[in-house]
Amino acid sequence: RVNAARIARTIEELGAFGLNAADGLDRTTFTPAELAARDWLKANLREELHLDVRVDEAANIWARRDGKNDKLPVIAFGSHIDTVPNGGKYDGALGVILAMEVMAVLEENGILTRHPLELVSFSAEEPNPFGLSTFGSRTVAGKLRRSDLQGVANDQGELLTNALAAAGGDPARYEQARRRPEELAAFLEVHIEQGKRLLERDIPVGVVTAITGIYREEVTVLGVANHAGTTLMHDRCDALMAASEIMLAFEAVCREHPAPETVGTVGKIANYPNAANIIPGKVQFHLEIRGKTRAEIQEALEEWERRTAAVCIQRGVRVERKLLLDQHPVSMDTLMQDICAQQAELLGYPHFSLGSMAGHDAAHMAALTRSCMLFVPSLDGKSHCPEEESRTHDIEKVANVLLHAILALDEE
Amino acid sequence: RVNAARIARTIEELGAFGLNAADGLDRTTFTPAELAARDWLKANLREELHLDVRVDEAANIWARRDGKNDKLPVIAFGSHIDTVPNGGKYDGALGVILAMEVMAVLEENGILTRHPLELVSFSAEEPNPFGLSTFGSRTVAGKLRRSDLQGVANDQGELLTNALAAAGGDPARYEQARRRPEELAAFLEVHIEQGKRLLERDIPVGVVTAITGIYREEVTVLGVANHAGTTLMHDRCDALMAASEIMLAFEAVCREHPAPETVGTVGKIANYPNAANIIPGKVQFHLEIRGKTRAEIQEALEEWERRTAAVCIQRGVRVERKLLLDQHPVSMDTLMQDICAQQAELLGYPHFSLGSMAGHDAAHMAALTRSCMLFVPSLDGKSHCPEEESRTHDIEKVANVLLHAILALDEE
Ligand SMILES: NC(=O)NCCC(=O)O
Ligand SMILES: NC(=O)NCCC(=O)O
Repeated sequence: RVNAARIARTIEELGAFGLNAADGLDRTTFTPAELAARDWLKANLREELHLDVRVDEAANIWARRDGKNDKLPVIAFGSHIDTVPNGGKYDGALGVILAMEVMAVLEENGILTRHPLELVSFSAEEPNPFGLSTFGSRTVAGKLRRSDLQGVANDQGELLTNALAAAGGDPARYEQARRRPEELAAFLEVHIEQGKRLLERDIPVGVVTAITGIYREEVTVLGVANHAGTTLMHDRCDALMAASEIMLAFEAVCREHPAPETVGTVGKIANYPNAANIIPGKVQFHLEIRGKTRAEIQEALEEWERRTAAVCIQRGVRVERKLLLDQHPVSMDTLMQDICAQQAELLGYPHFSLGSMAGHDAAHMAALTRSCMLFVPSLDGKSHCPEEESRTHDIEKVANVLLHAILALDEE
Repeated sequence: RVNAARIARTIEELGAFGLNAADGLDRTTFTPAELAARDWLKANLREELHLDVRVDEAANIWARRDGKNDKLPVIAFGSHIDTVPNGGKYDGALGVILAMEVMAVLEENGILTRHPLELVSFSAEEPNPFGLSTFGSRTVAGKLRRSDLQGVANDQGELLTNALAAAGGDPARYEQARRRPEELAAFLEVHIEQGKRLLERDIPVGVVTAITGIYREEVTVLGVANHAGTTLMHDRCDALMAASEIMLAFEAVCREHPAPETVGTVGKIANYPNAANIIPGKVQFHLEIRGKTRAEIQEALEEWERRTAAVCIQRGVRVERKLLLDQHPVSMDTLMQDICAQQAELLGYPHFSLGSMAGHDAAHMAALTRSCMLFVPSLDGKSHCPEEESRTHDIEKVANVLLHAILALDEE
């Protein structure tokens, strides 16, 4: 069994890196605070857990515990320790901390597994100033090439290659961070749910069925800029009013969609020329749809297109669209889902199967090896903010399921 | 009668100052291009028109032609030569050019008026980087005090007081630019309509009945920022979707308003935190209503408030409001309107009475002396853009009305 008090202490210890005045964490990837957290992690893995620590070319941190048979493929588990700006202590960090706890319990109990085990802390999972989220896991899965790094810089002009080198990566050889499918037996990630589905059902253990698909496009609405005073209402072709109708149509389509995990958001918008006394001539916004299947996303998108076409005709505006992202949903391995559910039952914990709704490193690891995720309830569904929190008794249960799922996978 | 060819030449001559690659004018107030245009204007007034030129403490340019009786108050006329960024050759400039033409015709014909005449080119009529539009006329009318200038700077940190001094003003004594009501007999301003009402009726001469009232406020819509993936549609309190409904309600109210000159615009908007995968928690926008009477503005505002309250209740958002501007409508002098209309009739030109819908220096001059405006049709109603244009034969007619209205005012 895991040690809940130790887990709580480790959460506080890691939660000190990047702490800001608002009680949030500013630990964006490759910032000084994140580099300090990496150093803390590496020292802890080496000195407390006596693991074999390695930083790969993409600056992912791996900590290995040999098994009885080192010819067997690795069972990997972990998450990430970078945060969004003013984020919380649990998103990502909890997955790494529970992986540490598993290693500690095995050590304390002198358990030697058949397979080698590797804890992993992935680089740059969160959206970051270099514009590359899930950077580490995508590199491990072979989805990012050296050429994708060329010239990538943050707003201050700092090159990603330099930041990567400072974190212990090797930009020149970084494709070598890629792992081969034969090396891995499975990947298991614990994460906070970041939503309210578990909490509302009062269930401590979430077993993830699929990582949500994320479809994103930039929509440009083109009207005619004009004088806000001298242009009569019926002479206007106001891009912002048209965009408002188009955005509301999008919200309505997502609300009406039968699958509750199909969600749509307009999070980003820019208006031109954006002066109080000029009728807007152009509006650009980012539209995002997420869903458990490609078909559900497509369905919502097509219904929105129909309604948008009607707005365009009625208002005389034009719409241009640019695809930004089309990440397909990724199913989690069903055998691993079963193992997680069985272990929860054996431990006497209620469990619930649910889609991820958020993106995770596990989506990319699934391209390499069978993968699964466990979710911990989030208080009030809050995440990416200082109020992000999960209860110790929920965390403890999920940690035990993680431990026993790894042992069950090891015995397969 | 005025000389249409000379007017056309002068439009081109002044239109060379600030010309950009897009064929628009970048002649924002106190920029090098605007200072060069000022120098051209002063030289022209002195050398070609032999007028007595004076730059007042607010850098307004006045050019005087003595009358038979210099104890009589001044008949003033003119407009402004600054432009919006990428503006046109007519907005403001035309009013100054036709004032020059009047002076030239009087000189050519050896006409000595009873009253002294003064041409005026006001400083900083347009919205400008110092945030003070109609700066010159407000100073003349005594509506701006020295303390209003203290610390005012543009985005580059340049102080307004320094820019003013460079243009020939005197920031230390600038309240002396204020004129007393007794000094003035009347103010008359020619301007392009900037709308389509005259053009659609095929009428060359507009007589302005009132300068529109402009009411502006900043509306803040407060929702709850949240994760765009893990927050189900029915758990959202999306500030941008709520703002969209509130803005569309505003548009509907203005469209439905019986007075066609009651217009409403949301020209400026900001969304927070403005990231593709975060549900917006806050939206701020500038709402503007214009109308011919305070009552019409108030009526529209109240109906919008009712509809907004319903949106707030339904969506669980909160709205905060901050007044930015409440410029009351200003009636033009009815006797002067009659004189302008009579002169148009005597000259055989169709004329039409209309509200200004845009703000103008005449609104402030009306606080000081009886004032009126003449409008020239704008092609396609376009203004504040390179395509801004008025036809020579329309301009010629309005110039003749201006000339004869001044002579009629002089004979009163
Ligand atoms: N888990 C998580 O918050 N990922 C960030 C990417 C996203 O889902 O928007
Ligand atoms: N005439 C004019 O365009 N004035 C600018 C101020 C405004 O009406 O918005």
